[in-house]
Amino acid sequence: MINVAREKRKVTIVGGGPVGSLSAIFLSRRGFHVDLYEARSDIRNQKNAKGRSINLSLSLRGLSALKKAGLDERIKAIGIPMHARYIHGSNGNHYEIPYGKKGQFLLSTDRLELNRQLLSAAEKCDNVNLHFQQKLIRCDARIPTATFEESGHFKTHQTTLIVGCDGTNSTVRSSMLRGKMDFSQKHIEHGYKELVIPPNPEGDYALPPNFLHIWPRHEFMMIALPNLDKSFTCTLFMPMRNYDKIKTKSDVLAFFQYYFTDAIPVMGEEMLKESFFAIAPLPLITIRCRPYHYGGTAVIMGDAAHAVVPFYGQGLNSGLEDALLFDDIMEEYSSDLERVLPAFSDLRVDSGHGIADLSLYNYMEMRSHVATPWFLLRKKVDSMLHHLLPSAFIPLYSMVTFSRIPYDEVIRRSRKQDMIVDNAIITIGCSGLALCVYGCYKIYKKGLVGNLDTVRGCRQWLTRYFIR
Amino acid sequence: MINVAREKRKVTIVGGGPVGSLSAIFLSRRGFHVDLYEARSDIRNQKNAKGRSINLSLSLRGLSALKKAGLDERIKAIGIPMHARYIHGSNGNHYEIPYGKKGQFLLSTDRLELNRQLLSAAEKCDNVNLHFQQKLIRCDARIPTATFEESGHFKTHQTTLIVGCDGTNSTVRSSMLRGKMDFSQKHIEHGYKELVIPPNPEGDYALPPNFLHIWPRHEFMMIALPNLDKSFTCTLFMPMRNYDKIKTKSDVLAFFQYYFTDAIPVMGEEMLKESFFAIAPLPLITIRCRPYHYGGTAVIMGDAAHAVVPFYGQGLNSGLEDALLFDDIMEEYSSDLERVLPAFSDLRVDSGHGIADLSLYNYMEMRSHVATPWFLLRKKVDSMLHHLLPSAFIPLYSMVTFSRIPYDEVIRRSRKQDMIVDNAIITIGCSGLALCVYGCYKIYKKGLVGNLDTVRGCRQWLTRYFIR
Repeated sequence: MINVAREKRKVTIVGGGPVGSLSAIFLSRRGFHVDLYEARSDIRNQKNAKGRSINLSLSLRGLSALKKAGLDERIKAIGIPMHARYIHGSNGNHYEIPYGKKGQFLLSTDRLELNRQLLSAAEKCDNVNLHFQQKLIRCDARIPTATFEESGHFKTHQTTLIVGCDGTNSTVRSSMLRGKMDFSQKHIEHGYKELVIPPNPEGDYALPPNFLHIWPRHEFMMIALPNLDKSFTCTLFMPMRNYDKIKTKSDVLAFFQYYFTDAIPVMGEEMLKESFFAIAPLPLITIRCRPYHYGGTAVIMGDAAHAVVPFYGQGLNSGLEDALLFDDIMEEYSSDLERVLPAFSDLRVDSGHGIADLSLYNYMEMRSHVATPWFLLRKKVDSMLHHLLPSAFIPLYSMVTFSRIPYDEVIRRSRKQDMIVDNAIITIGCSGLALCVYGCYKIYKKGLVGNLDTVRGCRQWLTRYFIR
Repeated sequence: MINVAREKRKVTIVGGGPVGSLSAIFLSRRGFHVDLYEARSDIRNQKNAKGRSINLSLSLRGLSALKKAGLDERIKAIGIPMHARYIHGSNGNHYEIPYGKKGQFLLSTDRLELNRQLLSAAEKCDNVNLHFQQKLIRCDARIPTATFEESGHFKTHQTTLIVGCDGTNSTVRSSMLRGKMDFSQKHIEHGYKELVIPPNPEGDYALPPNFLHIWPRHEFMMIALPNLDKSFTCTLFMPMRNYDKIKTKSDVLAFFQYYFTDAIPVMGEEMLKESFFAIAPLPLITIRCRPYHYGGTAVIMGDAAHAVVPFYGQGLNSGLEDALLFDDIMEEYSSDLERVLPAFSDLRVDSGHGIADLSLYNYMEMRSHVATPWFLLRKKVDSMLHHLLPSAFIPLYSMVTFSRIPYDEVIRRSRKQDMIVDNAIITIGCSGLALCVYGCYKIYKKGLVGNLDTVRGCRQWLTRYFIR
């Protein structure tokens, strides 16, 4: 009886991006009739639409979600592992900072190709219908109904559940704002601009490929991620007021010559000057909502619920994890939407706020901290502690990227860990000082002359140490 | 030439509430063709639609705006002055706390009647057309166009300027969110419910009329404002979880018997029990945006830009002041919209955030502080200082209610003043203590016995003072 009723239930998914497509797969497996509506045309019939989306780096959370759908291996095959950050210093120096333990990496992935594969996988599922070029105009979560526009005509569909995977400017969310939802959207002062490093004349990568390249310049930065076609997609993140100062092609060149000298030869001077003005810098936004659902009839996921700035590479990872966790909860509550939807908000809202905070924080780390000796020391101490106590101490970056610990829990654990490490450093420092004082006291007690040899020995050792 | 061009300019005002109507009057006077669209039907053809809007208390800001439109005297005639708070204590005691100096008062006003008069005044202006039952579906500030729905049909109008006065759930604002607007909406845990105190059997006010009645109960409160028909509109503000506990009519009675004993006879036991469940408690929300405009083509005002919780009675006052200040800026920049709109945001956004904070703060003051001796003492000290230094020291409440100082400036001044008063109290306290110590020292020096008379004298004086 329940099965019959369940089979009649229709889900309307709004948005045919990776989160919408993956949700379609999971919901179809639970016996729902799924209609997925996408405002744009089918990207599987298009060539690459470059220059308007930040590179994608998949990590454990996204890959776990894809694994549950049986798609992880297929996606891994189109990804390029990045084992470490490759820092391009201001003075021309380079160095690497590993992301995690040996064998841990981020996967630089083509966002469009990932989306294409997910759409095709969804299309193959039972009871999934994809509708393209149908834009959601409004929906009413109380009934629930959704009204779409297709080439000037409006059509209203009744449904059982509306799943809003319609991104940062979500129309589903807009309609839920009139319910009792807390919501905020906040821009940062910085904007981004995408540029390209083409393959070198030999047709190979112009920079070492298995890295995420970073040019940290404190107030701003540039990054580059490898693509399968041996090019890199570069993204420049900078305050909007700084973009305003770059007005001519020669301004661009002067700016790059001063800050990103080593990037000019690999980008190509002419191409750089041309492409810099192709698109105006795009804004960066953080979205926070509470809750993510309305009754038992509407829910939002991914960027619609928690768009974040891209500096932790967790935007899509957290969106795919939403779909995974939603499916876990559906399992737990036997698809009883009245219980599933509130449980999803309970589980996911604080986590969404957590990744928003972490992503804002990591901009500081990427553009500034990575260029400091203190950061390198902390990474080494963290890595050593993680090696000694692998489950008790996990570095912040690893918790976010290589674990499934909820993001808000990550923040709490990281704070505790920081306190422990800071205390350890203070203790070690104090112990060292105490040892010094004790040594001086010993020398003093034995008498200065009798110990001149020791003093000389120390001096010689120090001189040798610092001069070599 | 400029005049001709200006005359051709069309303004589309969305929302026929008091702010929209007043803006129509000001804009028509500047030579614009004004179309005002209201989603509901014309309230001038309706009887009172009670129970869904909090009482309105007009003060200086709102009255100044009405004065510029030449409507203040007409509105004052339908208002009831409230000179003081009338506190109904938990133990049945009553006391008054004046709002300001002698002659200063809030004006309890019928929101619908105010709206009716403003609509009629707008309708009489040149080039103003009112359109009712036309709901804005969407607008595009870039062109700008606005699409309205009228009994199932959609119509899109081109315009020069869109003015969004469409309240808390503003559709104009929704469409501006996709530009670079920061936005937040946040509910408080408390909801409100309106009740009525009818005229007494003699047909007169059942409570003293020239007051704002407050029943402060720390975590929640009830207030009552007088109406022209000798009734009072009561509003109960309380955490939503507390409403959930009141399930039956006898729960209602028990709750009122415990907390609002003196309100039951004036409300009527039966009417109270009936009306309590008529409408579910309504939510209270704070809206913050930055900026309030898009280019030179769209602007939001009033609740659409800064809906606030109702505890400072400044919601509509600040909205009417928006219209007034917008008109001042139009004057200053000769109606050059490209300069006027950014100037309006510059002037008004921080102020909007300010009144949002002040309104949240004043809930604490109304429901809890007013019932403490410290509050009464501070009011007396503030009032004395204001009397001594009328322009240098203005109590917080007076700055908000009886001045036109921008709300954000009010907060800054109030913080400074608080510091001064606190320091003064500490200084006076310390001086008193020093005097005591000095007195004791003198007694000690002269010898205890020689001063027994003094000690006895003091004791007698103190005994007399406390016993009488």
